[in-house]
Amino acid sequence: MRLSELAERLDAPLIGAEAGDPVIDDVSTIEEGGSSHLSFITGPKYAARAKQSAVGALLVPEGMVIQGKPCIACSDVWKAVCAVIAIFHPAREFAPGVHPLAVVDPTVELGEGVCVLPLAVIEAGARIGARTVIESGVHVGQGAVIGQDCRLMPRCVVLDRCVLGDRVIVQPGAVIGSDGFKYEVIDQRITKIPQVGTVVIEDDVEIGANACIDRAGFTRTRIGQGTKIDNLVQIAHNDDVGQSCLIVAQVGLAGSVKVGDGVVLAGQVGVADNLEIGAGTKVGAQSGIPKSVPAGSTLFGTPALPAVEAMKIHSASKRLPALLEEMRALRRRIAELEAKFSEDQRG
Amino acid sequence: MRLSELAERLDAPLIGAEAGDPVIDDVSTIEEGGSSHLSFITGPKYAARAKQSAVGALLVPEGMVIQGKPCIACSDVWKAVCAVIAIFHPAREFAPGVHPLAVVDPTVELGEGVCVLPLAVIEAGARIGARTVIESGVHVGQGAVIGQDCRLMPRCVVLDRCVLGDRVIVQPGAVIGSDGFKYEVIDQRITKIPQVGTVVIEDDVEIGANACIDRAGFTRTRIGQGTKIDNLVQIAHNDDVGQSCLIVAQVGLAGSVKVGDGVVLAGQVGVADNLEIGAGTKVGAQSGIPKSVPAGSTLFGTPALPAVEAMKIHSASKRLPALLEEMRALRRRIAELEAKFSEDQRG
Amino acid sequence: MRLSELAERLDAPLIGAEAGDPVIDDVSTIEEGGSSHLSFITGPKYAARAKQSAVGALLVPEGMVIQGKPCIACSDVWKAVCAVIAIFHPAREFAPGVHPLAVVDPTVELGEGVCVLPLAVIEAGARIGARTVIESGVHVGQGAVIGQDCRLMPRCVVLDRCVLGDRVIVQPGAVIGSDGFKYEVIDQRITKIPQVGTVVIEDDVEIGANACIDRAGFTRTRIGQGTKIDNLVQIAHNDDVGQSCLIVAQVGLAGSVKVGDGVVLAGQVGVADNLEIGAGTKVGAQSGIPKSVPAGSTLFGTPALPAVEAMKIHSASKRLPALLEEMRALRRRIAELEAKFSEDQRG
Repeated sequence: MRLSELAERLDAPLIGAEAGDPVIDDVSTIEEGGSSHLSFITGPKYAARAKQSAVGALLVPEGMVIQGKPCIACSDVWKAVCAVIAIFHPAREFAPGVHPLAVVDPTVELGEGVCVLPLAVIEAGARIGARTVIESGVHVGQGAVIGQDCRLMPRCVVLDRCVLGDRVIVQPGAVIGSDGFKYEVIDQRITKIPQVGTVVIEDDVEIGANACIDRAGFTRTRIGQGTKIDNLVQIAHNDDVGQSCLIVAQVGLAGSVKVGDGVVLAGQVGVADNLEIGAGTKVGAQSGIPKSVPAGSTLFGTPALPAVEAMKIHSASKRLPALLEEMRALRRRIAELEAKFSEDQRG
Repeated sequence: MRLSELAERLDAPLIGAEAGDPVIDDVSTIEEGGSSHLSFITGPKYAARAKQSAVGALLVPEGMVIQGKPCIACSDVWKAVCAVIAIFHPAREFAPGVHPLAVVDPTVELGEGVCVLPLAVIEAGARIGARTVIESGVHVGQGAVIGQDCRLMPRCVVLDRCVLGDRVIVQPGAVIGSDGFKYEVIDQRITKIPQVGTVVIEDDVEIGANACIDRAGFTRTRIGQGTKIDNLVQIAHNDDVGQSCLIVAQVGLAGSVKVGDGVVLAGQVGVADNLEIGAGTKVGAQSGIPKSVPAGSTLFGTPALPAVEAMKIHSASKRLPALLEEMRALRRRIAELEAKFSEDQRG
Repeated sequence: MRLSELAERLDAPLIGAEAGDPVIDDVSTIEEGGSSHLSFITGPKYAARAKQSAVGALLVPEGMVIQGKPCIACSDVWKAVCAVIAIFHPAREFAPGVHPLAVVDPTVELGEGVCVLPLAVIEAGARIGARTVIESGVHVGQGAVIGQDCRLMPRCVVLDRCVLGDRVIVQPGAVIGSDGFKYEVIDQRITKIPQVGTVVIEDDVEIGANACIDRAGFTRTRIGQGTKIDNLVQIAHNDDVGQSCLIVAQVGLAGSVKVGDGVVLAGQVGVADNLEIGAGTKVGAQSGIPKSVPAGSTLFGTPALPAVEAMKIHSASKRLPALLEEMRALRRRIAELEAKFSEDQRG
């Protein structure tokens, strides 16, 4: 497809056309793409690299020009990228219907256009919304409710009575509704306290591969609308995660944590139980949060401190071994001064 | 059900009956429950919150009174909570029998009352104890031995020759018996050393969702009686975990670690290989244990130190940037004193 | 089997035969083995323990003698260990063929001697190399390409278009080809950017249980030849991992990380996005790497520093609380000196 044709499809102006109208057969990054690839930059800081890139053409923000490269000027570059991806890599289509080797209980309600692939299991009383895809080997437990246009990818597990909103994506191997980790000593034995709550996952959430979302003890664990959860994340019982959060791989939340809207937790962060992370808080990778933090915090370290302070301390700590040396020297000089002074007094 | 009837069923006295005999239809927490809910507190520190709670009634320890709330006085509150949960949320029942779409090798021994759900696989020579439930999509490998009254939840995997005791619960996606991570350079190539040992999981253990328990190189990896392992935990080859331990989410033990009885490892803790964690040790979240620790230790940090010391250091470290400033000032004052003094001597 | 017979099979000399020619029925470690076991040591530092071991005989490096124990002298002990394991614990054999309850699309190309176990799913256009074993419940997506002599263990998932080389082992529950974690704000909504790249896993790689390897945004995530990845590891989109690396359990790499050949990342290490880890680098457990590091680095800590420096700082930090005390004392002594001196001047 000629670049000019792509520009037309995107309904966006072609600029720098004097640099040619190449045939484009794929979309890629400026580092990895070749001459038949369309790439993209989202701001002027990538301009120099884009100019040197081997790609044949670029999507750029309106007002930008990359000398020597034909460009399509976009009001929203990422929106245009998605449109171009849809052209060159149309999403896999799933034909409606239930595979004969899927095991769907007769009491299950299947919405219009639902696709159930082989070896999926949907237990009694579950409801699956219109156009949702249940891929191979998925387990949907008794009475679970899955919204419309969801995609449950191979071998993920949604246990009894959990509720998923619309357009939820569950990556392979994720487990939703496992029991919370709750034991008490009864009659001298560590005894499991049955976890009879559920999980509610709101619209437009994505859950990463092999992530775990435990059901609540009594009420519900909640993942708010639009929140994205990466692979291998642990969300414990009774957590309440707000909207539009980004929870990066291998983060672990202990139980009964309240996470405000728009919080970003970088990879491997840990959050202790029963605390509150104020809206808009950003936490650096591997940090450990031991107590509640106000909205808009930026934190780092274990136990976490304001990020600027944490980095100052880290920086200062590098001088700690030298500091100990110097302390010894100062101590000696003071002792000498004291000795001289008292000698002087006596003299 | 009237509260008075519940009290009778629990065989425990109703107190504060002048506050009424409400109809109770569920059990919940003091924060989340409503007027038709029974909640519970385990000690006086929750009394104020319980009094303000919207719940209709409370389970309380014997001797406690919450003004304005009808209460049931319990000799063991958690035991009563479990009894009440069993009334309002009876555990799911699994009818004995093997689903026609389960794949059970003819050589498998199934105990009385075993339930095998669809798309489970049980390979040759495995033995399944009485009343155990093998849920959908579970894999039980060749020669594995599963005890009585176990529950293997959807899509968990127990590989060849692993042994589970009685009343073991395996949450979805957990893997028992994966190969230990063992490679040696042979003929200039990194070569896998076959892991021919097994895993032994004793009675009353619970394994969390997507947790991994590697088989031993030659003998066995062991999880002791009553130990509870949370989601996404990694237990490596030849680990020997004692009884009644609590191993919280995302903890990782390297190989050949010996964990004593009653050890508590909080979330995301890491333990280096070939060391011993003494019985009753408690390790704070995200800590890293680089060497053996005596029984009864309380540790925190990476590398871990006694928790009190670690917190003192963390606290002191916050003053480190100021300390560096002050060092500069002290150095200057000493230099001035030295100069004045030697001037004075000369003068 | 007599030890002398084993020596013959290994084509290696029996030494210390005056200590007997025991019947050997298994291989074990020097700590765990008994009198009918053959064990092994790889160097003189284990000699004392070997001498005291209960095992009946030993594999030792050429030139070593353990008094009182018959030994087989090996040019490569680990190679001999593998040979002995193969004798006493022959690897499980998988008969070629497709189980009637596997779901293999008619367009799939199966190499000679492939074994597909029950309830595996292989989708349209996938290709499976000769002698590869697809175990129960495995999912192989559309157009995926699996090499020869691979073993895909129960319930692992290889998604659409991913490519595996020869002799790749995927432990249970691992997910290869999940979507990278990539969202941008489009029209005021956090929007998923489709991940249309793939994963390429080269020959002789092993992927641990429940590990996750995300597909690239546009090109490919790569795991280099001979690299071994442990359980619960997260490899993000566009990561490029070199050859012969060891990536221990629960490590997380953020996106677009380039890992050189022969890198060792210990357990729970985290690596930030878009950086380069030079070849041969070794990183201590739980460390966090915030920026690129040159080849041959040895690092520890969060943020990581050269390991020697990090340990010095850790060691010095233990004296920090005492240092603060001492600072106060020095400050007082200086103030006293200053006071005395100025008094002295005035006097």
